[in-house]
Amino acid sequence: MESDKALRVAVLGCGSVGSQVVRLLDEQAADLEARVGAPVELVGVAVRRLDAPREVEVPEGLLTTDALALVSRDDVDVVVEVIGGIEPARTLILAALENGASVVTANKALLAEDGPTLFEAAEKHGRDLYYEAAVAGAIPILRPLRESLAGDKVTRVLGIVNGTTNFILDKMDTAGSGFAEALEEAQELGYAEADPTADVEGFDAAAKAAILASLAFHSRVTASDVHREGISEVTAADVQSAKDMGAVVKLLAICELKDDAVAVRVHPAMIPRSHPLASVREAYNAVFVESEAAGQLMFYGPGAGGSPTASAVLGDLVTVARNARAGTRGVGESAYADRAVLPMGETRTRYHVAIDVDDRAGVLAQVALAFAEHDVSIQTVRQEGRDLDAQLVVVSHEATDAQLSATVEHLRGMEIVREVTSVMRVEGEAE
Amino acid sequence: MESDKALRVAVLGCGSVGSQVVRLLDEQAADLEARVGAPVELVGVAVRRLDAPREVEVPEGLLTTDALALVSRDDVDVVVEVIGGIEPARTLILAALENGASVVTANKALLAEDGPTLFEAAEKHGRDLYYEAAVAGAIPILRPLRESLAGDKVTRVLGIVNGTTNFILDKMDTAGSGFAEALEEAQELGYAEADPTADVEGFDAAAKAAILASLAFHSRVTASDVHREGISEVTAADVQSAKDMGAVVKLLAICELKDDAVAVRVHPAMIPRSHPLASVREAYNAVFVESEAAGQLMFYGPGAGGSPTASAVLGDLVTVARNARAGTRGVGESAYADRAVLPMGETRTRYHVAIDVDDRAGVLAQVALAFAEHDVSIQTVRQEGRDLDAQLVVVSHEATDAQLSATVEHLRGMEIVREVTSVMRVEGEAE
Repeated sequence: MESDKALRVAVLGCGSVGSQVVRLLDEQAADLEARVGAPVELVGVAVRRLDAPREVEVPEGLLTTDALALVSRDDVDVVVEVIGGIEPARTLILAALENGASVVTANKALLAEDGPTLFEAAEKHGRDLYYEAAVAGAIPILRPLRESLAGDKVTRVLGIVNGTTNFILDKMDTAGSGFAEALEEAQELGYAEADPTADVEGFDAAAKAAILASLAFHSRVTASDVHREGISEVTAADVQSAKDMGAVVKLLAICELKDDAVAVRVHPAMIPRSHPLASVREAYNAVFVESEAAGQLMFYGPGAGGSPTASAVLGDLVTVARNARAGTRGVGESAYADRAVLPMGETRTRYHVAIDVDDRAGVLAQVALAFAEHDVSIQTVRQEGRDLDAQLVVVSHEATDAQLSATVEHLRGMEIVREVTSVMRVEGEAE
Repeated sequence: MESDKALRVAVLGCGSVGSQVVRLLDEQAADLEARVGAPVELVGVAVRRLDAPREVEVPEGLLTTDALALVSRDDVDVVVEVIGGIEPARTLILAALENGASVVTANKALLAEDGPTLFEAAEKHGRDLYYEAAVAGAIPILRPLRESLAGDKVTRVLGIVNGTTNFILDKMDTAGSGFAEALEEAQELGYAEADPTADVEGFDAAAKAAILASLAFHSRVTASDVHREGISEVTAADVQSAKDMGAVVKLLAICELKDDAVAVRVHPAMIPRSHPLASVREAYNAVFVESEAAGQLMFYGPGAGGSPTASAVLGDLVTVARNARAGTRGVGESAYADRAVLPMGETRTRYHVAIDVDDRAGVLAQVALAFAEHDVSIQTVRQEGRDLDAQLVVVSHEATDAQLSATVEHLRGMEIVREVTSVMRVEGEAE
């Protein structure tokens, strides 16, 4: 494009994010023009229904229900996709790229399921595909991973990347609520949807984990590579047990480099209260990054919401616009490392296990033997007698998840074990 | 440059940062080549003395004492400047740019004093000038401000950007040490230099504040625009007084947008313990950013050290190398907003004032009157009787710094006031 020509933008979707994108394009027009070096002009907004109520007034004549026609117009330079979901988003993004437009998207589900198809299309057509808003909302995390840490070796990413579950777990921690009660409060406050499955069962976090792992380790990781456990089984007793050991329960997205392979998982875990992630409250998100040279970094902020997500979209839009003006492309995806994904059973972690046992001599020895049989060594045991029974709380040293889960199965089958009351992984502390 | 040709790098300085840059260039060579798309080759290292001991073995024949000759070689694509200080760094950077090389630097003092000269030279010669390592070491903060938030409006930046002073203040807070004792411990542990002036008196933080404000507000702010107060006057009593009100003392770099002007200052301040910056311990750094759409973001990590700083340098180096291969430049400096800098007297802030007064009737009324005379309204007063005298601790509402300091002068001259024992600004909380 010529250097003084306006950059023409089409927006797909005008919900909570899309309406804020439209608002900012208008309100920040002068600043955007100064930063890009050319005006940024909204040329169309695709919606499902023309007469739906929306948070922003869209200039007359820009609304359309024909998204495919909009992305196929030859006067569109950038398409912002904020519809979400797999289809029709994928078809529309591919059509936009094919038509010569660059794309900015917030669509984590699509990127985690079928990112490579999109990246290849962007590469083939020489266009940009940016998606900072897809992970942790307004928090700049993808650009730092892709660019700031490009000269370093990232070894681990620990993220609180789902605000709904963090809100629920925070309530359980601070108010002592049970899961159901905390979920209900989250729903009342608009932090959780009527059907909360995608959030509470970890699907949303798993999609983000796949995206983070891909960038951090220069490899292709998709949602199906991510071991996923949600928080619906987390009990008030688990949260109390974490408190007793100076820890807090968080739903973590964990991406690790192990030798040349990657391990990517989402599950609730206990982390020490002294860890920077422990103080991430309410619906906030944070991503903790460990790398060889930089050490430990953390990025913190609002992980969702129309306006924060729109900020990330607009940041990408400015980059794409500058690239377009310079006749160049930004950094594309890099998957050169092509690493294997480690199955969960081979991933090394630590377990916190609470067990109700008969209170009689030799119980601790029998439990310790069960751990030893699976080659799992014990870091700490806490024993609390209660009338005729006792509770043992065991925290293991690091072992493979397969060894650890076999140990728990073994415990469940033992005569002296009345119940295994809590099993949770422990993360974020040096052994 | 051609796309398969090596990118040739000259490094100026081989101290704690330079030696880690040299090490990483060697150790990460394969990854750097994959990420850049061409080999990254070290072609020379300028040092003061060839025979000085250093932390890394520099390949034979690469060391030189003639830095100017090195940056003038026609086979150098990128110059990494990690000497620090104003001269000869400025001359060398300008010579490198003029000679057609791009530059990556960690030199906050030079950028804060004479950044515009360097930016203009980079612009004129069509080369890149990157300096992520100049502020907060390994923490990616400049790239997020410049790119991720390019579609947003940053309104405020609060940074803990000097590790030495944070270490000292943290010791004073946790161990109850006085300033002198905490400084001595910092020196013993290598966190403070033998002459600690640049850190302790806030010069280092002021340089970083100027750089942050320039990027955040798209304007030119130099070190001389920054109001600067160090921490050498902070007493154990100040720290205790902060504790009593649930706060902690930090040396903050504060950059604010007020209407169309900017206010930039560095001084110790009390912030509430619930603020994310309050939990930044020891020598860590963190930068807290407030923007209209994104809300509140925080970036946390190691703010100094050879290896973390080298990570930031290498990240810039990869970006510059990618740009060079694409025959393009990155985002240059943008000062389009050209904002006025507000004098400290006109900057609005809040004061915490502790006063020893005679313990007699009417004292509180007289003190309240003194505040009222300067149009400063009081948020809270805490009164503690102690035998024949009493202590009043007053926290004001927001007023201009001129009004607040006039109020303190007024108090000092009052007959009933025995001593103003602590004066400190209060930041980071909603009124």
